[in-house]
Amino acid sequence: MQHFEHELSVLKERLLVMASYAENAVNRAVEAWRNRDDALARKVKEEDTVLDRLEMELDELAIGLLAQAPLATDLRLITVAMKITQNLERVGDEATKIAKRTRELNLEPPLKVAAAIPHLAERAVRMLRGALDAFVAGDTAAARELLAQDKEVDALNRQILAELETAMLADPQNIKRCLNLTVISRSLERVADHAKNVAEEVVYLREAVDIRHSHQAAAPPP
Amino acid sequence: MQHFEHELSVLKERLLVMASYAENAVNRAVEAWRNRDDALARKVKEEDTVLDRLEMELDELAIGLLAQAPLATDLRLITVAMKITQNLERVGDEATKIAKRTRELNLEPPLKVAAAIPHLAERAVRMLRGALDAFVAGDTAAARELLAQDKEVDALNRQILAELETAMLADPQNIKRCLNLTVISRSLERVADHAKNVAEEVVYLREAVDIRHSHQAAAPPP
Repeated sequence: MQHFEHELSVLKERLLVMASYAENAVNRAVEAWRNRDDALARKVKEEDTVLDRLEMELDELAIGLLAQAPLATDLRLITVAMKITQNLERVGDEATKIAKRTRELNLEPPLKVAAAIPHLAERAVRMLRGALDAFVAGDTAAARELLAQDKEVDALNRQILAELETAMLADPQNIKRCLNLTVISRSLERVADHAKNVAEEVVYLREAVDIRHSHQAAAPPP
Repeated sequence: MQHFEHELSVLKERLLVMASYAENAVNRAVEAWRNRDDALARKVKEEDTVLDRLEMELDELAIGLLAQAPLATDLRLITVAMKITQNLERVGDEATKIAKRTRELNLEPPLKVAAAIPHLAERAVRMLRGALDAFVAGDTAAARELLAQDKEVDALNRQILAELETAMLADPQNIKRCLNLTVISRSLERVADHAKNVAEEVVYLREAVDIRHSHQAAAPPP
């Protein structure tokens, strides 16, 4: 039993490591965008394989633990950890997408729009870190707080997209670049979305009340 | 043990039911777009709660099964089922997004572009169905075949996005509508992406070789 507890704490530690790779990928991608740094953008793409590998590695660890889990609550915890690895791997995919669009943007002169992108990135990454911390600490209150933050991030993304649409309407020469910036903004919103997914799982885990989907309905025929 | 096998087949059946709801959501959303049917678009959004509920229900069923799983291969199968529910729930989110953009498009006169969207939708939905069938049948060859199809769907999406960009450049009055169509095309590509994720899990499950990420690298410091 003590062995199991130890293994469980190893799994949690590895999840935090994986999360820090995911955070870093997003931070670097946004830094590459801000500094028009092609080499860094390329590096983000190359290093995405690390997150892919960590997802597999953690899932293997989790499956090994499932076989010895003494309690239903442990089973639940481990399956949530596996859902989290899937979300973190997707965060890496979004970072890669940002890096790809950065390289396209670097082929053209800079456009002075969407200045709020670094702010959006910072908020999304902070949410991700918060969600992982909430999982490891089992802190439902912190997880619930993140769900409110996600709405603010959505609003910030909508604001950036509206700004980009205005810039496209103002000058067709902006269209191509604005489309790339649109993809970057949406990717960051998706990072926050993954953080929200993790937070929902934490709430679900601790309260056994799934607030992922608070509005219920009867199932109509498909 | 016979009881366990029975429960496992129930889980698979429920997954197929969930998948058919997800397929239907996408089909209806695209139908709503094609027919400019606001009522149907609204219905797609309302019925998304069914998929949310099914994800919870299936996860509960899976956790109950984990506790009695006799073999490591069963544990693996059940955890893959739980990853699949997460993907199907996201497919529902994409259908809702398509429905939302459809309602925005219905506020303006129709634009005769992106005629390949129904074709993209059809391919994405077919991939999703194929991936679920491959999971239930444990058919690795079929799952591998889907990975190749995903590349074609990506190419089709890129083609539609290029067409939309051209239409935006041709006339600024098209921009708003083309942006909505861009979101719809991307959503369909994501549906195919979810199908690909499921297919990768099936291959992983059967071959214990994870081709999700075939290009490996050593982990640099975060």
